[in-house]
Amino acid sequence: MSDRIYTAGLVVIGDEILSGRTHDRNIAQVASWLQVQGIRLAEVRVVPDVLDRIVAAVNALRAENDYLFTTGGIGPTHDDITVDAVAAALGVPVVIHPEARAVLERYYAGRGGLNEGRLRMARVPDGAELIPNRMSGAPGIKIGNIHMMAGVPHIAAQMLDSLTGTLEGGAPLLSETVGGYIPESEVAVLLREVEQAHENCQIGSYPFFREGKVGANFVIRSTDPDALQSCVHTLCEGLGELGFDFTPGGI
Amino acid sequence: MSDRIYTAGLVVIGDEILSGRTHDRNIAQVASWLQVQGIRLAEVRVVPDVLDRIVAAVNALRAENDYLFTTGGIGPTHDDITVDAVAAALGVPVVIHPEARAVLERYYAGRGGLNEGRLRMARVPDGAELIPNRMSGAPGIKIGNIHMMAGVPHIAAQMLDSLTGTLEGGAPLLSETVGGYIPESEVAVLLREVEQAHENCQIGSYPFFREGKVGANFVIRSTDPDALQSCVHTLCEGLGELGFDFTPGGI
Repeated sequence: MSDRIYTAGLVVIGDEILSGRTHDRNIAQVASWLQVQGIRLAEVRVVPDVLDRIVAAVNALRAENDYLFTTGGIGPTHDDITVDAVAAALGVPVVIHPEARAVLERYYAGRGGLNEGRLRMARVPDGAELIPNRMSGAPGIKIGNIHMMAGVPHIAAQMLDSLTGTLEGGAPLLSETVGGYIPESEVAVLLREVEQAHENCQIGSYPFFREGKVGANFVIRSTDPDALQSCVHTLCEGLGELGFDFTPGGI
Repeated sequence: MSDRIYTAGLVVIGDEILSGRTHDRNIAQVASWLQVQGIRLAEVRVVPDVLDRIVAAVNALRAENDYLFTTGGIGPTHDDITVDAVAAALGVPVVIHPEARAVLERYYAGRGGLNEGRLRMARVPDGAELIPNRMSGAPGIKIGNIHMMAGVPHIAAQMLDSLTGTLEGGAPLLSETVGGYIPESEVAVLLREVEQAHENCQIGSYPFFREGKVGANFVIRSTDPDALQSCVHTLCEGLGELGFDFTPGGI
């Protein structure tokens, strides 16, 4: 843990997300997990199952960030090309990982055995390690600062769980939420002034419509717990002075 | 409508998505809407509320695609900087749009009137048109091939609705789904062979775990209805020959 800010990029791979057929759930899941590791998600790119497009996104985001995560495209079918793309990005060959092969052999022993498609899931960029997955045999893959995870959200969750605490991060970003049936357009000046008065804090404003009424949650973020509390206190005072009811924790 | 493929990029703007606090719903919504317009979503980037990062994503994706959409960052608060970023990307000043101002004046007439924050929502890059929004007064903004929409999903939906049929697109991408409790690792070879035999078609394989059983939906996509039907037919025959039950339409 240090004062430096650690960042990660995420590449979400899959035509199914870009067609609207599948609603992505990995962005939020990876983002929340990274926060707890003290790592900030700096950018996400969603790209199709096209080699060059994956390579370009992987190379852009791994260069700009401490860590890169990918989700999707590590299954057994012809459209699963994430391993090939990451190997191409790194300029290394694709090899069969002996431990991944052994894991898959055990997993499929009572399920018809290994075949061409299943063996595809033992392919890794040369030099990679495995990320264990208790759920479905096929492991995730880690090479350098790149972590390749499944696209199926609950399998990706297992892989994240295996990685918990293994990555070097900075101080986790803390946050407090204050919410109310407060039109954000009536407190825009207050929010800006409070944020400016607390330089290590950032205030996000997230409006909603609920039961026919407008409201907003204000999320105050900082890595410094004292600055955070002071900022929350000033904001609540300001909301009170403007005559608004608000709920600590958000609504 | 033509044979050419039209593409769009999407920039999702907001720290709340990158922190995991808010689950994005605009990617799937914009993707589905684009499909119906005959436009393919080619890439999504999720970036924070940081001017330079928004400018870079906007410039990259508008150059590569026929259309660019943005969601988020057009509200009344200090962290809403999408208009500034798009203006900077285009090298034009930010101005108050008289029609947007008039819309907001009418909308807020019985709600306390215009103030500094609310007037912020009338700011547009010079030369922009408005995208109507029946929901909350504040309009979306269109300039050149760029369409700026709200981050709140049901307001973004209203803006998309206003744009329906106004963008030039190609033949819409058609799709058929076939699903079953079929382990995709047992049909990987079949899927690849069927796809290779139908050059205008593409097959995506989307595994799931449900009620303790593995299965997959296979989505066949093409802009050519005859090629699509032929591909679906060949795939279903192949699945039958391997002894699998399947459900047209997917499960």
